[in-house]
Amino acid sequence: MRLIAFEKEGRPALGALVGGDAATLEGAAVVALADVVPGLPADPLAAFAALNLPEGAAALAAKLEGAPRRPLAGLTLLPPIPRPGKVLCIGLNYVEHAKEGNNPIPDYPAVFMRGATSLAAHGQPLIRPKVSDKFDYEAELVIVIGKQARHLTEADALSCVAGYTCMNEGSVRDYQRRSPQWTMGKNFEQTGGVGPAIVTPDEIPQGPNALRITSRVNGRTMQDSNTADMIFPVPRILAILSEVMTLEPGDLIATGTPSGVGYPRKPPVFMTPGDTVEIEIEGIGILSNPIAAED
Amino acid sequence: MRLIAFEKEGRPALGALVGGDAATLEGAAVVALADVVPGLPADPLAAFAALNLPEGAAALAAKLEGAPRRPLAGLTLLPPIPRPGKVLCIGLNYVEHAKEGNNPIPDYPAVFMRGATSLAAHGQPLIRPKVSDKFDYEAELVIVIGKQARHLTEADALSCVAGYTCMNEGSVRDYQRRSPQWTMGKNFEQTGGVGPAIVTPDEIPQGPNALRITSRVNGRTMQDSNTADMIFPVPRILAILSEVMTLEPGDLIATGTPSGVGYPRKPPVFMTPGDTVEIEIEGIGILSNPIAAED
Repeated sequence: MRLIAFEKEGRPALGALVGGDAATLEGAAVVALADVVPGLPADPLAAFAALNLPEGAAALAAKLEGAPRRPLAGLTLLPPIPRPGKVLCIGLNYVEHAKEGNNPIPDYPAVFMRGATSLAAHGQPLIRPKVSDKFDYEAELVIVIGKQARHLTEADALSCVAGYTCMNEGSVRDYQRRSPQWTMGKNFEQTGGVGPAIVTPDEIPQGPNALRITSRVNGRTMQDSNTADMIFPVPRILAILSEVMTLEPGDLIATGTPSGVGYPRKPPVFMTPGDTVEIEIEGIGILSNPIAAED
Repeated sequence: MRLIAFEKEGRPALGALVGGDAATLEGAAVVALADVVPGLPADPLAAFAALNLPEGAAALAAKLEGAPRRPLAGLTLLPPIPRPGKVLCIGLNYVEHAKEGNNPIPDYPAVFMRGATSLAAHGQPLIRPKVSDKFDYEAELVIVIGKQARHLTEADALSCVAGYTCMNEGSVRDYQRRSPQWTMGKNFEQTGGVGPAIVTPDEIPQGPNALRITSRVNGRTMQDSNTADMIFPVPRILAILSEVMTLEPGDLIATGTPSGVGYPRKPPVFMTPGDTVEIEIEGIGILSNPIAAED
């Protein structure tokens, strides 16, 4: 099942993608979940929690059969969780990426956070700010939490996962380095693409750590790796984070980017207004965003 | 005006404190804002935005006169914004605090974020986690955003401020240092006290950068400084943050802690179950939290 958020009569609503091409989404239709789940809360985050994922996934999927649907084309997509409670990001989670930036291989993850104001939906422009031209791409697998969890073990960690999506964890490199804390460079307005859809775990039987992950700038492949190369694989990330904090439905965890980002290249490659940048993750989909200048 | 959040019939609700002792809150009563503002949204964050602060403050204050009220005693307080969109924190914003930790004086603020799951209300226990005994206090002035703002100048920055509150920005020092990114040590469950109330700017005519700020552990003064000593004063923080991101109603900005924290003391002083820790800021109030062990 592939879950999205979209604008429905001017308000955010949850939906499921049905049919269409899994990669391009061409011909896909959308079932509004409020049409098939009686009493679903209007607030998307509360609605997402009420879906009771992952346990509720099979029952929800069954309700999509024969439900009223609308064409995806013409709808405005939102980030699949429009206002997550937390957006946690793991830095330096691929060995070759740590090396390309001359960073040591971490023995404990570097964690930072993004705010909802930094996110953008599939198809929506990522904004290169006026104050910098060092706007870099980062292909990342995102874990979407389905139910509240604390003190997970690696063995039971995946039990809280609603699904996975793609992120272009857009980073303004000069601001990221203005302080030892990376937060500012990671939180420029509308710089982090997320989506297009949350793909439930049953669609990736190989699990989250055996997926090819690539990024392309104007069709040129810049990153090409596999989530098998994570230093901290998905279950370990969930165990480490939940030792500290409660994970909640709709929380997003970006799991780090592989090597091939723009800033260490010679010459550097940055996202420039007019570019189109795609993040593709095997079994999850293709996130595509045009790059626009801040007006 | 002093705004709070509290549990009303099992749900979070906004209120205003009326009467009572400004420091101890003894004898204070609470007006539920839903009783005086017709059509106020049920969600506290949406309700806070609907108050249209700071412009709406005078009209709201006028409505409190003669409104139905309930005693504060017996109510369960929540963090004054129970689920903020963003909790931004400025590190190393007082010269003597930077020095006591052997940190350089920053020329750009160190910014990190906390999630709502890390917050606690006035009176609620702060939880020392099982995995660490290095749970440190940090007295901080918190800016509460009242209206959406981007690209503020220092001159107009205060126009977006709804008010100020106190924070004990509880920090688990060993986890804070396990990575160059401080996020994990700053996000343990229920470790950051916030409150008791959001005090509107009209109650501090001297402005936010002329306030004595102190912390006490079991009555012993540990930090005693003044917000005049901030490296980045409140208007500059707002200008710097809003260069990067949109500030939204209910966003919290913790402005850093002065010297006197526990870890650099010889011997170190940490918060221990059974302790009571108070943060007092002139004109804003006293935030008091007992310390409890994770069960």
